[in-house]
Amino acid sequence: MVNVGILGATGMVGQRFIQILDKHPDFEITALTASSRSAGKRYEDATTWYLDDAMPDSVKDIIVTDTDPTEVSNNVEIVFSSLPTENAAIVEPKFAKNYIVASNASAMRMKKDVPLVIPEVNPEFLDLIEIQQRNRGWDGFIVTNPNCSTIALTLTLKPIYDSYDINRVYVSTMQAVSGAGYNGVPSMAIVDNLVPYIGGEEEKMESETLHLLGTLDGSDVTNANFGLSASCHRVAVVDGHTEAVFVELDNDVDIEDIKNTMKNFKSIPQDLNLHSAPKNPVLIREENDRPQPRMDRNTNNGMSVTAGRLRKDPAFENSFKYILVGHNTVRGAAGASILNAELINKTIL
Amino acid sequence: MVNVGILGATGMVGQRFIQILDKHPDFEITALTASSRSAGKRYEDATTWYLDDAMPDSVKDIIVTDTDPTEVSNNVEIVFSSLPTENAAIVEPKFAKNYIVASNASAMRMKKDVPLVIPEVNPEFLDLIEIQQRNRGWDGFIVTNPNCSTIALTLTLKPIYDSYDINRVYVSTMQAVSGAGYNGVPSMAIVDNLVPYIGGEEEKMESETLHLLGTLDGSDVTNANFGLSASCHRVAVVDGHTEAVFVELDNDVDIEDIKNTMKNFKSIPQDLNLHSAPKNPVLIREENDRPQPRMDRNTNNGMSVTAGRLRKDPAFENSFKYILVGHNTVRGAAGASILNAELINKTIL
Amino acid sequence: MVNVGILGATGMVGQRFIQILDKHPDFEITALTASSRSAGKRYEDATTWYLDDAMPDSVKDIIVTDTDPTEVSNNVEIVFSSLPTENAAIVEPKFAKNYIVASNASAMRMKKDVPLVIPEVNPEFLDLIEIQQRNRGWDGFIVTNPNCSTIALTLTLKPIYDSYDINRVYVSTMQAVSGAGYNGVPSMAIVDNLVPYIGGEEEKMESETLHLLGTLDGSDVTNANFGLSASCHRVAVVDGHTEAVFVELDNDVDIEDIKNTMKNFKSIPQDLNLHSAPKNPVLIREENDRPQPRMDRNTNNGMSVTAGRLRKDPAFENSFKYILVGHNTVRGAAGASILNAELINKTIL
Amino acid sequence: MVNVGILGATGMVGQRFIQILDKHPDFEITALTASSRSAGKRYEDATTWYLDDAMPDSVKDIIVTDTDPTEVSNNVEIVFSSLPTENAAIVEPKFAKNYIVASNASAMRMKKDVPLVIPEVNPEFLDLIEIQQRNRGWDGFIVTNPNCSTIALTLTLKPIYDSYDINRVYVSTMQAVSGAGYNGVPSMAIVDNLVPYIGGEEEKMESETLHLLGTLDGSDVTNANFGLSASCHRVAVVDGHTEAVFVELDNDVDIEDIKNTMKNFKSIPQDLNLHSAPKNPVLIREENDRPQPRMDRNTNNGMSVTAGRLRKDPAFENSFKYILVGHNTVRGAAGASILNAELINKTIL
Repeated sequence: MVNVGILGATGMVGQRFIQILDKHPDFEITALTASSRSAGKRYEDATTWYLDDAMPDSVKDIIVTDTDPTEVSNNVEIVFSSLPTENAAIVEPKFAKNYIVASNASAMRMKKDVPLVIPEVNPEFLDLIEIQQRNRGWDGFIVTNPNCSTIALTLTLKPIYDSYDINRVYVSTMQAVSGAGYNGVPSMAIVDNLVPYIGGEEEKMESETLHLLGTLDGSDVTNANFGLSASCHRVAVVDGHTEAVFVELDNDVDIEDIKNTMKNFKSIPQDLNLHSAPKNPVLIREENDRPQPRMDRNTNNGMSVTAGRLRKDPAFENSFKYILVGHNTVRGAAGASILNAELINKTIL
Repeated sequence: MVNVGILGATGMVGQRFIQILDKHPDFEITALTASSRSAGKRYEDATTWYLDDAMPDSVKDIIVTDTDPTEVSNNVEIVFSSLPTENAAIVEPKFAKNYIVASNASAMRMKKDVPLVIPEVNPEFLDLIEIQQRNRGWDGFIVTNPNCSTIALTLTLKPIYDSYDINRVYVSTMQAVSGAGYNGVPSMAIVDNLVPYIGGEEEKMESETLHLLGTLDGSDVTNANFGLSASCHRVAVVDGHTEAVFVELDNDVDIEDIKNTMKNFKSIPQDLNLHSAPKNPVLIREENDRPQPRMDRNTNNGMSVTAGRLRKDPAFENSFKYILVGHNTVRGAAGASILNAELINKTIL
Repeated sequence: MVNVGILGATGMVGQRFIQILDKHPDFEITALTASSRSAGKRYEDATTWYLDDAMPDSVKDIIVTDTDPTEVSNNVEIVFSSLPTENAAIVEPKFAKNYIVASNASAMRMKKDVPLVIPEVNPEFLDLIEIQQRNRGWDGFIVTNPNCSTIALTLTLKPIYDSYDINRVYVSTMQAVSGAGYNGVPSMAIVDNLVPYIGGEEEKMESETLHLLGTLDGSDVTNANFGLSASCHRVAVVDGHTEAVFVELDNDVDIEDIKNTMKNFKSIPQDLNLHSAPKNPVLIREENDRPQPRMDRNTNNGMSVTAGRLRKDPAFENSFKYILVGHNTVRGAAGASILNAELINKTIL
Repeated sequence: MVNVGILGATGMVGQRFIQILDKHPDFEITALTASSRSAGKRYEDATTWYLDDAMPDSVKDIIVTDTDPTEVSNNVEIVFSSLPTENAAIVEPKFAKNYIVASNASAMRMKKDVPLVIPEVNPEFLDLIEIQQRNRGWDGFIVTNPNCSTIALTLTLKPIYDSYDINRVYVSTMQAVSGAGYNGVPSMAIVDNLVPYIGGEEEKMESETLHLLGTLDGSDVTNANFGLSASCHRVAVVDGHTEAVFVELDNDVDIEDIKNTMKNFKSIPQDLNLHSAPKNPVLIREENDRPQPRMDRNTNNGMSVTAGRLRKDPAFENSFKYILVGHNTVRGAAGASILNAELINKTIL
């Protein structure tokens, strides 16, 4: 068993880390950190638990510490980070001197020597770790996963990108409120309403997706070279981001081919049989009105993305459109970092 | 005063007709029709009133009749139709023999000799009336307005279309539940959920918008010649459709120009000072997070469309994106038919 | 393994039966019935699946039959009924000639010789089975469980009733939309709204609760003799009924005593270790703002009721108040019938 | 015209003050205060406007000042206060030295010499003003209105209290999220959920209601002497509190009498024809499923309370139950303070 810690363990994504890691075959939670207000308390006493499933007994008595490497026992090997961006920018490098940091924060994602990875999409970007350690003189390292809405989109685009020439992608999101944290979206903003704006989200989707589908050559990533435009919106859904995707290829489209390409997509995590890897990263629903977030977000423990309404786009040549749903705090956050750690544990440690 | 009737007066759009026509300076409701179940009853007794404002006293005692021209007094000149499609296809032509039918139903919209009109967009299509009457030997005629989501989109595209060369439009909607009628969307489908499908909606948006922006030459409409692709979704909002729009032009984009073009857009209804015409068909909000349906749907009595987040699209040349909100049962339904009737009343009768 | 069938298997409670019975150690689903529209189809083809968890593979290929005893194989021993009331009144007696009918329908609940049972509350009412069989000449029999909101209330009142003299109970509910079936509550009625009325619900709560807490003497049930008044309301929650309860006793109240009495309550299902019986039928939360339906409905697989905010009522002597949450389609419907069947299977068959 | 100011003008209740006072025949807004962060800015620039109706033009250019009497011009006569409690406790007395303070804050409500008033219920409590001024040596004074849920309840209880002997009242609320301010309730707490707790609310309802129905004798208020117990809960509704009320009288109940007593209730504000006074403070709906908050909150500009489902309580002698809906930020907050000020303006100034 590898001892692991969670940085920012009392927040919503921190709780998802705990929920998913409970009874994990390879990882055992032995450290939990939070703000100094919580430090010194039992986790159960420090935390207002927000998830539907009850808090696992195994973490209740762990004493929360400050988010500081000197406070965390050095028999911990991996720390998962769900820290706020500004905080992550300062703290994660400190931890990386001695620990493996699997981070869901955006702070370090776009650093040239920090791998931004979805295991099914670009596992080879982990080669940056060696460069990172050399550059920075660290014994540990940082690996990051993308933004929640990016992950779901990229998992569905990857098999298409590998088999066809993508020309353009437009994506319009309907995102769950949990993505903003427990206090992020006031109910006054969301009852009989929606908010057509999420700060920084469109930029992240546009840059991260092309980066993830890009090519690593030595220490340089060359982005995928198609255009991608996002419009991001918040709706009255607890968990599960829905995205409407329009794709233009360079050549003619056969919908059944596209569908099979998505459906049959498998990659390294499936080959390695990683614990959190779904048998199929992308599922296809055939019903007219699916996927729907409440119905489809939890499929395969929230680690698969469900696509549906795959249809030719009559308005444009070589074009098709579809809808996808992915669980934003599982596949889009905690589960993403954990799958990264599982890949590292199996291939590097 | 012109005496008017409402076909399908007990339904949700029927109620909007009543609400908007109450205290109208030119139209007076003297006939209300519904299914035979309601015929013979006082309107108040026949109707479960769904709107937030109370039922106007003026209609309470009107006796509801069957939806049949022989039941409606012939001192009625205009009938507004909010009939279900199949029903409208049969009944509206019967009424058109003697009455002006201003219809919100989709049944006759795409008939070659039936004008599909938004007064600010293509008032000249009313010229088809003469052809229609000649073709069909009617003393009355049918004029239709487009689908709710089409109207809001087209009002914002029209000023752009007149000043620039549009190349492509992608639109992704987040539509209110009232659009499906009172019983249309079960709460199980919409609480902590959304439905990424609305039957026929994408097709209507794609065909009607290009038709409305097209050119009438004699009896033929030549569609606007750009590509338009829609993806339509239902969210937990009572009234007010929100649309995310991506536009590609043929030439370079200056966002301030675009904004001013939309903001300054005025047309025939404004020139004629029609009672229901808003001073500005399109309003622009400058805040990051607007328009929002609950906040913006009622602006100018629900007859203006509010656009916001007008921004360059960094992903594509000559491109920009924006968000719009329009009231689906006012500007997108009852108000649209009434504005058509006001235009006819002022220019033809 | 006992072969079981589900009457009305395509509806929402029918689906809960399937979900809970999947992988049940003692019961195996071998028959599924529905309306004639579905008869002859594979269950997967006949059903729009509404639950968050996917449809179990084991039922997908079962051929749905009409809800008629002659269509159901006679190696089935128990049928679970989630039929609509009027239908249940006709069909359940036909099945009871040869099958054990564990019914969630209200049709037969108040028949003098039909046991209305919550296993933790009044298991001794099963003695009515013998009388029922004798009266009606049936080889099988009908056993019923109460209404969803009654079950949750009664589970919390039972331990109090056994230890104190209850004088009055007032209960005000905030019920989930799933209780009305998938199409029961339009979204127009529940977005930014609530419906302060549920047909027949108050009457059921008032009569069933006193019956369940009553005494069986031969073939006669003497109701518990305190007053109980209910007011029932529907709110925008998918699953989980919340109830605000005011109780007046005959004597002084010690809140800690009450709390311990509820918390320590165990009964026959716990003693017999029935598969679906929760270790504790009633759980107590100490936080100010719990229980909450989304957070607490699934505790112990939805089979426990969670109470909280247990507090003295300063307005009245000998009085206290509390809040409870129970899962309406699990503990309040399918799970209730299944627990009844488990009790029968262990003690009678 | 009386010049008026609003203390705490940028918050949600502050905005309601502005909305209601716009075009008021007797009051003209000439001063707006807020926290120092907003001081010095134009109101339009200082405020994120939350209401559905647009911000009135008349206030846009008013320069917001600190909430300090020295900053407010002394030609202002009345200031309306929607300050947070702690703040109100400090600031309102300062203003009362020279201004009339009509306050919606709870800080001073229960001070012995401060009138807590609903104009239809206990206008005679304004006699305390003289005592207050004498006690405190103020030229101005403070008058307060009760909590939002108290006002709606008390308006319906008052006519009953005047005609019958009330023995007990139990009330269970389903309150709108706007009552907690724009940021008060996170959407994570209210989507597919409810919160069965509102800090201090039950205590306020219980004490304020009995106080309002009490008797003023010199400087002493003797509370109404029946028991009243409240349980308070937050649900997914934007505006409009719903309350389920159980009443026990000393004598037999005739529901038609009760209904007529409520329906015919009129009081001083109706006699004086105060601008904001509804013709009827209490309206009765006869439908089974009304009142509903979205449908009924705005009746009579939100100043009437709507009651429905008036029915005998079969569980208890001399008892009946009903449901009510009142607009929490209009009749329950800003409108309440304004009606108090109108009464003062007409009878005292």
